[in-house]
Amino acid sequence: MSVFTKVTRDELAHWLRGYAIGSVVDLHGIAAGVENTNYFVTTTHGRYVLTLFERLSAAELPFYLNLMSHLARHGIPCPAPLADERNELLGTLNGKPATLVTCLPGAPVMSPQPRHCALVGAMLADMHLAGRSYPGSQQNPRGPHWRRETAVAVMPFLDMHRRTLLASELDFQDANAHPGLPRGPVHADLFRDNVLFHGDGLGGFIDFYFAGVDAFLFDVAVTVNDWCIDAAGELDLERGEALLAAYAEARPFSDEERRAWPAMLRAGALRFWLSRLYDFYLPRPGELTHAHDPEHFRRVLESRRARAIPLP
Amino acid sequence: MSVFTKVTRDELAHWLRGYAIGSVVDLHGIAAGVENTNYFVTTTHGRYVLTLFERLSAAELPFYLNLMSHLARHGIPCPAPLADERNELLGTLNGKPATLVTCLPGAPVMSPQPRHCALVGAMLADMHLAGRSYPGSQQNPRGPHWRRETAVAVMPFLDMHRRTLLASELDFQDANAHPGLPRGPVHADLFRDNVLFHGDGLGGFIDFYFAGVDAFLFDVAVTVNDWCIDAAGELDLERGEALLAAYAEARPFSDEERRAWPAMLRAGALRFWLSRLYDFYLPRPGELTHAHDPEHFRRVLESRRARAIPLP
Repeated sequence: MSVFTKVTRDELAHWLRGYAIGSVVDLHGIAAGVENTNYFVTTTHGRYVLTLFERLSAAELPFYLNLMSHLARHGIPCPAPLADERNELLGTLNGKPATLVTCLPGAPVMSPQPRHCALVGAMLADMHLAGRSYPGSQQNPRGPHWRRETAVAVMPFLDMHRRTLLASELDFQDANAHPGLPRGPVHADLFRDNVLFHGDGLGGFIDFYFAGVDAFLFDVAVTVNDWCIDAAGELDLERGEALLAAYAEARPFSDEERRAWPAMLRAGALRFWLSRLYDFYLPRPGELTHAHDPEHFRRVLESRRARAIPLP
Repeated sequence: MSVFTKVTRDELAHWLRGYAIGSVVDLHGIAAGVENTNYFVTTTHGRYVLTLFERLSAAELPFYLNLMSHLARHGIPCPAPLADERNELLGTLNGKPATLVTCLPGAPVMSPQPRHCALVGAMLADMHLAGRSYPGSQQNPRGPHWRRETAVAVMPFLDMHRRTLLASELDFQDANAHPGLPRGPVHADLFRDNVLFHGDGLGGFIDFYFAGVDAFLFDVAVTVNDWCIDAAGELDLERGEALLAAYAEARPFSDEERRAWPAMLRAGALRFWLSRLYDFYLPRPGELTHAHDPEHFRRVLESRRARAIPLP
C-alpha cells in the first residue's frame, strides 16, 4: 500500500479551499506506486489525483510539474497539475510537497498488440515535439554519472559473469556517447504501467517523475525495451516496427540517430538493469517487497548486445 | 451556417504540422455561432475545435485565449487553447487569426431545472475565484461607455414608451454605479447555449469572446437573467435561489454586493436589451437572420425594475 502520509477528509477539505474545484465528495488511497503517496480525489466538479511527494523535494518539483503542464497545454494527454489561488502548481499538505493533477481515463494494457505500440510511438513522438519549447533544463538524473556511481555500488554483489558484462557495457557506452542527438525533455520511464488506454485510443501517459532532458532516442529505446519484447526479453519485430514507424511518421529519425540506435537500446537496458540491481541489493527500508527481479533487464541487455532492430 | 472562411482538409493538414496532436481524421463546419468560423477537427489524438476569428483582431485575442488557458489550468472546464511548436496559442490560417481549443463533452440544456442552475452557480463562483489570479486587465467592452453610445444609436428607432424606459434606466444605472464591488474576469455572456451538461454533471462553459474585467456580480446578474426566468421574463424563484445559494457556498456575497444586486440585475438586462436593439435596427450585412427579438430583454428589464430576488 502506497499511502505513506495519511490525509483525512477534513484535512483535504481545508486544503481544497485554496482551489476552485468544488468540495470533497470522495477520497481514497491508491495502492500502486512505490515513491509517493497518491489518492483519488472526487469533488463536486470532477476527479483528480492528489500526490504527496515522499522522495522529491519542493525545490526539485517545478521541473516535473511545469513539464506536465506544458505538455498538457500542447495537447499531450498527461496529468495536468492544477493551479491554486496563488496561481501555484505546488503546495504543502501535512508537511509534504503536494499537488493535484487531472485524472486521465483508461487503464494500462499489459499484453500490448502492434496497434497499441503504434499509438504509443505516435504519442511519444508528439510528446518530444511538444517538449522542444519547454524551457526547463534538468538533465536526466539517471545519466552517465549516475551509471558509474551505481555500478560501483552494485559490483560487489555480482558474480563473475555479471561483473564482466557490466564492466564491458559501461566501457562500450562511454565509448559510444552521442552528444549531438536531438534532445529535449524525455519521460525516461514509459513502461506499460505508465500508459493508459481508453476505448480504442490512448488515454494518456502518467508518472513523469523520472523525466529529464536527454536524447529523444533514449526515451524511444526505453520504451521499445518494455513494449516490444517477449517474455525472454527478446525483441518482437512486429511490435517494434509498429512503434518505430508510428514514431517516425511524426518525427522522422536522423541519420545520426540511426547510427546511434543499437548502442542506445543497450543504454536503455543498462539503465534499468543498474537501478534494479541497486534496489535489489541496496533497498531503502521497507522497499524490498517492491523490488523487481534484476535478471529481466540483464537478459534484455544481453539480447540487445546480440541484435538490434533497425530504425525506419 | 457559420463558416465564413473555408478551410480544406489539405490546408488544415499543413497547418497542423505546427502542432503535436497527430494527423487529420475529420473536419467539418459548425453551424452554431454568428461571429467566428468554427470547425470540429478530429485527429489521430483527439477532438478539437478550430476557430478562425472574423471580428476580433490578433491584438485583441490574447486576453481571451490566455484567460481560457488560465481557467483550464485552475480546473475550470472550458475550452483550453492548444500551444503550437512556437509555444503560442494563436496562429494564422487562411489569413485569419486562428486557434485550436479542446472539445468539451456534453450539450446545452435549454429548459434547466433547479439542479442545473445549482451546478452553473457553483461553477460560476469557482470561475470567479480562479480568475482572481489572472493578470489580464481588459475591461468589459459592454460597459458604461458602450451603453451610452449604443443608446444614442438606437434611440431614434424606439417609440415613446421605450425611449422613456431606456432614458430612465440609463439615468438610474449612472446613479447606481458600484465601483467597489469584487471584480475580475467575467464571462459576461453565460446564457444557456454557452454551458454544456454531460451525464449528471457540468461539461463546461464555452464562448468566452465577450469576457472582460468587471464586477463578478454583473456576471451573476446576466446568468440569472437567462437561467432563472420564465417565458415572460419573470424571475423563477426556485431556480434563482438554487443558482445563488450554490454560488454563495463557494464565494459568499458581501454586504455591498447585496445592496448592489437589484440594480445589477437591471444592468444585466439593459446590456442585452441594448445590444439586441442595436443588432435589430443596425445589423451588419448578412446578420439580420441571427438577430434576436429585442422585446424579450425589454420585458426582462421591466420585470427586474418591478422586483428582484434577494441574494443569500
